[in-house]
Amino acid sequence: MSSVLQFPAPDARPAPAPISAVDALTLAEPLAERLAASAVARDQSGGHAREERELIRASGLLTLTIPTEHGGLGASWPTFYQVLRRLAQADSALAHVFGFHHLQLAGVLLYGNDSQQHRLLAQTLAHRWFWGNALNPLDKRLLASDARSGYSLEGIKSFASGSIGSNLLTISAWHPPTATALIAVVPTDAPGVTVNADWDAFGQKQTDSGTVSFDAVHLSAQDVLQPPGVTPTPRATLRSQIAQLIMTNLYLGIAQGALQEALHFNRDQARPWFQSGVAASADDPFIQHRYGELWLKVRPAEVLADAAANVLQQAWDRGTALTAADRGEVAIAVAEAKVLSHRAAIEIGSQLFELTGARSTSARYGLDRFWRNARVHTLHDPVDYKLRDLGRYALTGAHPEPTAYS
Amino acid sequence: MSSVLQFPAPDARPAPAPISAVDALTLAEPLAERLAASAVARDQSGGHAREERELIRASGLLTLTIPTEHGGLGASWPTFYQVLRRLAQADSALAHVFGFHHLQLAGVLLYGNDSQQHRLLAQTLAHRWFWGNALNPLDKRLLASDARSGYSLEGIKSFASGSIGSNLLTISAWHPPTATALIAVVPTDAPGVTVNADWDAFGQKQTDSGTVSFDAVHLSAQDVLQPPGVTPTPRATLRSQIAQLIMTNLYLGIAQGALQEALHFNRDQARPWFQSGVAASADDPFIQHRYGELWLKVRPAEVLADAAANVLQQAWDRGTALTAADRGEVAIAVAEAKVLSHRAAIEIGSQLFELTGARSTSARYGLDRFWRNARVHTLHDPVDYKLRDLGRYALTGAHPEPTAYS
Amino acid sequence: MSSVLQFPAPDARPAPAPISAVDALTLAEPLAERLAASAVARDQSGGHAREERELIRASGLLTLTIPTEHGGLGASWPTFYQVLRRLAQADSALAHVFGFHHLQLAGVLLYGNDSQQHRLLAQTLAHRWFWGNALNPLDKRLLASDARSGYSLEGIKSFASGSIGSNLLTISAWHPPTATALIAVVPTDAPGVTVNADWDAFGQKQTDSGTVSFDAVHLSAQDVLQPPGVTPTPRATLRSQIAQLIMTNLYLGIAQGALQEALHFNRDQARPWFQSGVAASADDPFIQHRYGELWLKVRPAEVLADAAANVLQQAWDRGTALTAADRGEVAIAVAEAKVLSHRAAIEIGSQLFELTGARSTSARYGLDRFWRNARVHTLHDPVDYKLRDLGRYALTGAHPEPTAYS
Amino acid sequence: MSSVLQFPAPDARPAPAPISAVDALTLAEPLAERLAASAVARDQSGGHAREERELIRASGLLTLTIPTEHGGLGASWPTFYQVLRRLAQADSALAHVFGFHHLQLAGVLLYGNDSQQHRLLAQTLAHRWFWGNALNPLDKRLLASDARSGYSLEGIKSFASGSIGSNLLTISAWHPPTATALIAVVPTDAPGVTVNADWDAFGQKQTDSGTVSFDAVHLSAQDVLQPPGVTPTPRATLRSQIAQLIMTNLYLGIAQGALQEALHFNRDQARPWFQSGVAASADDPFIQHRYGELWLKVRPAEVLADAAANVLQQAWDRGTALTAADRGEVAIAVAEAKVLSHRAAIEIGSQLFELTGARSTSARYGLDRFWRNARVHTLHDPVDYKLRDLGRYALTGAHPEPTAYS
Repeated sequence: MSSVLQFPAPDARPAPAPISAVDALTLAEPLAERLAASAVARDQSGGHAREERELIRASGLLTLTIPTEHGGLGASWPTFYQVLRRLAQADSALAHVFGFHHLQLAGVLLYGNDSQQHRLLAQTLAHRWFWGNALNPLDKRLLASDARSGYSLEGIKSFASGSIGSNLLTISAWHPPTATALIAVVPTDAPGVTVNADWDAFGQKQTDSGTVSFDAVHLSAQDVLQPPGVTPTPRATLRSQIAQLIMTNLYLGIAQGALQEALHFNRDQARPWFQSGVAASADDPFIQHRYGELWLKVRPAEVLADAAANVLQQAWDRGTALTAADRGEVAIAVAEAKVLSHRAAIEIGSQLFELTGARSTSARYGLDRFWRNARVHTLHDPVDYKLRDLGRYALTGAHPEPTAYS
Repeated sequence: MSSVLQFPAPDARPAPAPISAVDALTLAEPLAERLAASAVARDQSGGHAREERELIRASGLLTLTIPTEHGGLGASWPTFYQVLRRLAQADSALAHVFGFHHLQLAGVLLYGNDSQQHRLLAQTLAHRWFWGNALNPLDKRLLASDARSGYSLEGIKSFASGSIGSNLLTISAWHPPTATALIAVVPTDAPGVTVNADWDAFGQKQTDSGTVSFDAVHLSAQDVLQPPGVTPTPRATLRSQIAQLIMTNLYLGIAQGALQEALHFNRDQARPWFQSGVAASADDPFIQHRYGELWLKVRPAEVLADAAANVLQQAWDRGTALTAADRGEVAIAVAEAKVLSHRAAIEIGSQLFELTGARSTSARYGLDRFWRNARVHTLHDPVDYKLRDLGRYALTGAHPEPTAYS
Repeated sequence: MSSVLQFPAPDARPAPAPISAVDALTLAEPLAERLAASAVARDQSGGHAREERELIRASGLLTLTIPTEHGGLGASWPTFYQVLRRLAQADSALAHVFGFHHLQLAGVLLYGNDSQQHRLLAQTLAHRWFWGNALNPLDKRLLASDARSGYSLEGIKSFASGSIGSNLLTISAWHPPTATALIAVVPTDAPGVTVNADWDAFGQKQTDSGTVSFDAVHLSAQDVLQPPGVTPTPRATLRSQIAQLIMTNLYLGIAQGALQEALHFNRDQARPWFQSGVAASADDPFIQHRYGELWLKVRPAEVLADAAANVLQQAWDRGTALTAADRGEVAIAVAEAKVLSHRAAIEIGSQLFELTGARSTSARYGLDRFWRNARVHTLHDPVDYKLRDLGRYALTGAHPEPTAYS
Repeated sequence: MSSVLQFPAPDARPAPAPISAVDALTLAEPLAERLAASAVARDQSGGHAREERELIRASGLLTLTIPTEHGGLGASWPTFYQVLRRLAQADSALAHVFGFHHLQLAGVLLYGNDSQQHRLLAQTLAHRWFWGNALNPLDKRLLASDARSGYSLEGIKSFASGSIGSNLLTISAWHPPTATALIAVVPTDAPGVTVNADWDAFGQKQTDSGTVSFDAVHLSAQDVLQPPGVTPTPRATLRSQIAQLIMTNLYLGIAQGALQEALHFNRDQARPWFQSGVAASADDPFIQHRYGELWLKVRPAEVLADAAANVLQQAWDRGTALTAADRGEVAIAVAEAKVLSHRAAIEIGSQLFELTGARSTSARYGLDRFWRNARVHTLHDPVDYKLRDLGRYALTGAHPEPTAYS
């Protein structure tokens, strides 16, 4: 990759209409099916999914959230999240990489100035770039020191999802002189950047979420989205809510995928328990009852995830007029959906086996991947602090503090 | 009351527009506040709430669901359920009576022929009649024997909600010659009808849900909504879904009311636990966390109750074209919301005390009424069979069988 | 009652053997049955149960925990708690009064000097005195000012269980000069003491747990069990564990009583649901399954309550050699049992109705009293702080701080 | 291996005393520590653990349950289960193999005649044989046809735990002429027996639980423990309860092991959440609270597992006098403990991560093995039918029917 500094000529034609949810899902469907076909095998092998990332690239969906005026598909947030969820049903690791790509684009839109937006989005389109994340705000080992016309970066970032195989990284770096962090864009192939294939969690294996090392990496001032010491606007802090809602829909996709596979197993493969007195597993009253329970874990998560996406869109549409209170309402709506999706994914991923039975634990079905994927990914931030935020809001009306996690 | 047989002249003017949700809630608000003011005292005394029923009558809301072409307010189902829920927050017993009144009107619309609809609805409007329910289909002690130009009714019905103080009753009676039940309308003051003030449950005390005795009561053929031996259309069987969604919204209103009163108590009256290290009960992290949990019981019930009302309305609007499958989708949507509302009401009604503490158990607060009201009313039909219905649908695609409870 | 100051002659005969659990339960059984017979009616009326308290007195069980060397039955703690639990199955309010009587006696044994023990226990035996509790440590409105040969008491205490109808009260009073509390014994008929019949909670109605007012009450130094400013020994702080285990067994008795009454109802009165396909309610697989769940709430509470009583007895037998660590192990064992009993009582008290059905809500069965009694009594101290204590112990090995609640 | 038919000379010396629990645990401790040291690595590799099975053999614990009169250590059932649980804390797969070895020995004691017992147990001792299980009663694909002086076996058995590396197998085979099953012993190296290394579940990987094929295997009549058509005595049916309690203690060991590793992680490695306001993860009130909850999942399972072992021992000691009712009480006690252990293992295995956090999902900790092991093994038979059995017993007093699972 050459550099992030080229500046394509602006396009004077009027932007086309944003893609509809139906059209976006139509684009996503064959991709989801391709991912599903190999998901069990790839979960077992782990590692970087080069081929599947190329499938995503080829689908055109990397431009899904780029506004039409920048040449993208211009999907609304509700549409984006539906696509994300569909992919997560099939393969939550690749969906994660896909979602985090779009999270970085949102970061450009929220933190970048007009010039940065124009330049970075146009290049992303032109080169079909994949973005990765090296922004983990709790990991303060990457330091930015002042340098000529920018900064010098030195250190390491962990949990850098999508870093391997990416073209650009969004990073955060701690800036000791101001005791704050800056946010910036760094080409993955910039001199001094090393992406390490050291992600070894037991779930979400193909998310390329290992560490990235920075050795005297030069960061140009024009690639800094948020300079040190700058307080973000309420609108800019929507980024963490977009991230939280990405996770919500990944969890929800896992829950939905797990429920569907379990239902298939009970319909097609499971045998009735010898004491049940029924001829088919699906007729066992205890199995029906338990599926009723699992259903009622997914449905609320679905409707509240959709509701949260609409609240986010309304806030987004408010532009720079967005107030802290508006932003707080987004955070509440997202928190509701996130807790429910978290629990749906974990509980269905674990409880489905009570229904599918001992034979469903064979590695050839890979049914444990739902729990493992959900279990790893739901640890992004503690559910107890989301519950606290919701309860505190109910009690006092106080919105969650805008942080990278709330 | 004179009789149900008068036939008012048809009105040739075009029907006005149906009342909006906002306007209906505006009508309901002062009523809700009046009911709330005495709800604790009336829960303790129990018995028939003559005065409060007159308040309901005076509000004009008894015509809420009567179509505008029949002279009513013509509220959509979503609007009706919002009003019902608001009243249930204030007083779930009176809301129950109000809801069951409208259930009887729905029965007229679903089972009655044009003439019956016209006559009965017009009279209801003209006389501001209150309807009661004596339809309990599991109680087959009321027998209909063939008689000249109709039937003779003999026996008793239990769980006759709203019977005391009503003007008309919808009844079901077992007809031995056909081994089926008929559904009909009987004036509460008809000779031979005795309404008994024998409802003594520990909750929903002012619902007037005792027994009604019938001693050689003459039932005219023209007051029979569904003759014996007739199989109801899919549309007619929406009645039980309207009933189930009434219960859903009553439970939900209880849950919401309980949560609001608990929050008030914690804000205004509760003291922090001496080991909490905080100055106010509302700052205790365990209390905040628990309120987060309770919040997440109410929110899903709310959104799914609203969704179910919309599904019902769409089915209703399909008129006689409604298929069994359409009707089945209503039943699924309502079942989802009903289970969640049931649990929200029971759990919040019981768990709120972990938050409000020992001092909140004083009779002067009456905070136990939420659990008692929810506990009694949620036993209308077993939640386990709803869960079974949902699970069976997920497994096999089979809709719940249309019964009086599903 | 004359005074607490008489001093009976010591008895030189060797003390008889302590009463066995079997013999104690044999004494308790007819009392339990008598209490059960009127429990529903007395729950509804509330108020002071003079007659039933006389039954308790007549049973001889007021001396159950008085050591044999003081002339009592000398029951071990495990035996006492079994008796308490049996009574709580029948009537948790009267069992509460009974349990708190013995808690006061334990206070004399733990805080009193030899002379106080001898005098107070002998008088209790001789006059068949009933003790009440006015010790609520969170209510600091009762003040002790220094007075000639003792203190003067002024103020009020709340949650004074068993105060009405008692002969002696244990009190705590705040002593401003030392900013600590004293613990003492005051005759209920002492000049200036007024016991108020103002307990109005919705459960545990006949526990006489209202307020007691003190107007210039003289407190003699010889009736002070713990003077202001004195730090209690580890052994003395067993009192709060004895109290916590009294509550545990009251909750457990409620849970057991509720489960037994529910089982009776399902066996004898409940009707099978029309969709169940079975001839008897007890054959419904969902009902069997739910009873399996409720059973598994009671059984762990039973075995851990028994285990805790044994741990307490061992600690008690260690006498003054008891260390803070020994005492901490008691607190952990009691906390385990208390949380489980709390939950068993609340959950069974509420969930039993899902099994017994709508007809079981009639006031004539009084089945709601289990939830109401459990709900009121389990609020004595927050379950969340018990869970915190258990978790902190698991994490760090730290025992709960000795307080009046832990 | 030569054959099972050798007959060692009887030993006339008096049998020594059975091994104590303390001594047995002392033998087990170094074995447990050795297994723990490699458990994470072996869970990842899966396959047959030849070396670790030799460690078990070398420990002498293969004779743990062989009565002293047969030359074994003669452990009581409570002692055996304590050893099993200790091993399961370290490595639930090897503990499973160990437990199932002893289950086969129990089968010999319960179903074998004196001669079979003497011969098989003596040989087991002399050769330090390992037994495997090929008894899956739900798999009726192994057929026994009548043959000269015995039977001919043809077919396959699945879920044959411990089959690889075993010396003897207990098998069940379907006997079409009587439409019943026989139970017998077959040397693993007998001509026609093929043990397949095809176990590929995602948990309990090293349990060697694949299939065993039988191709014209001759079964001598003297190796038949239960001939076709014979109804087992109540005592013989204790075998399935011994098996159920083995599973109970395996699940419980998993739960205990998971809790201990999680606590270690939180003490030593976890970081406090940035919003917690505390300096150490172990001081976070939400983390303490959750550990309190997990603790209360393990403790009841522990005490009820111990109680069930005692009930089993009492039944065992009753010998041939054991009645069906006695046997039923064992089944109830075991069912209680099994459900609680099942849930403790699944819930702690899954929920521990909410406490240990994202960094604990690295493969190097292997913390997911607890959930995977519990998840696979708890599917042996459906928990819902255990709950039904418990509820039915509470309702009707009916004991579980003696089957291979209840």
